[in-house]
Amino acid sequence: MKILGIEHIGIAVDDLNKTSSFWGNILNIFHTHTEVVESEKVTTTIFDTKKGKIELLSSSSSNSVVEKFIKNKGTGIHHVCLEVDDVSHAIIELKEKNISLINDKPKIGAEGYKIVFIHPRSTGGVLVELAEKPK
Amino acid sequence: MKILGIEHIGIAVDDLNKTSSFWGNILNIFHTHTEVVESEKVTTTIFDTKKGKIELLSSSSSNSVVEKFIKNKGTGIHHVCLEVDDVSHAIIELKEKNISLINDKPKIGAEGYKIVFIHPRSTGGVLVELAEKPK
Repeated sequence: MKILGIEHIGIAVDDLNKTSSFWGNILNIFHTHTEVVESEKVTTTIFDTKKGKIELLSSSSSNSVVEKFIKNKGTGIHHVCLEVDDVSHAIIELKEKNISLINDKPKIGAEGYKIVFIHPRSTGGVLVELAEKPK
Repeated sequence: MKILGIEHIGIAVDDLNKTSSFWGNILNIFHTHTEVVESEKVTTTIFDTKKGKIELLSSSSSNSVVEKFIKNKGTGIHHVCLEVDDVSHAIIELKEKNISLINDKPKIGAEGYKIVFIHPRSTGGVLVELAEKPK
C-alpha cells in the first residue's frame, strides 16, 4: 500500500448553501461539482484546491452517518481521505495488521473512487478513508 | 488571497507514541520531525505525504487549546490548514468580509509558517488555519 497524498477532507454540514459560500466565495476555492453518493446517503459538494479537496457532506436521507455525526458531535470535520495506489491491496494489508475496517470490501464513493473506511478505534479517534482513483 | 492547497490536518492526540505508530508504521507515511510550538503550547509530530501533511498535536502544557479540545470533544481532527500566498493580506481581506479570526495578527506556527486561525462560527463548525510558508 502506498499513500499518495491527502485526497480530501470531508466536512459534515447542515446548511449547504451557507457553508458553500465560505469555501467558494470567501476562500475562493474552485467548485468542481455536486453529486449524490448513494452508498453513503449524502450529497457532496466538492471544492478543489488542486492540492487536496474540500468535500461538504449533507445528509440526503434520514439515518445517514452524516446525520448521526451531526447529532452527536455537531457540524465539522467528519473524516480525512488519503489517496492510495491500490485499495484492495490496502484492505488485505490492514487486516493482516489487525486494523479495524468499517467495510471489508471496497465501496464506490464520490467521483467513482474505490474506497474503504478505517475505524477511529484503530487510528486514535479519526475516521480515515482510503481511496483509489478510477482508471 | 490565494489558497495554494491543503497544507496539513491537525489531529489532537493523547497517546503520541501509539498514534504515531498508526500514521508512521501502519500507513507508512514519512515522519519529518517533532517540534514544540510554544505559541500553541503543543508538541507536534509531522508526517508528510508529499501532498499534505498529518500533524499530531499533543498538549505540552496544561490549559492548552489541545487539552481543552480533547476534554470537550475527545481525540480526533482538530483543524485543517490551508496554505496561502500572503497571510497578512488574507487577514485584511477576511476582516473586510466580516469573518471572525482568532488572532488579528499573524503568529508563528510549526516550521516557521506565518499563521492565522479562522473561528469555526464563520466556517460552519471547522477550525481553519491559513499558513504562509517562510521565505
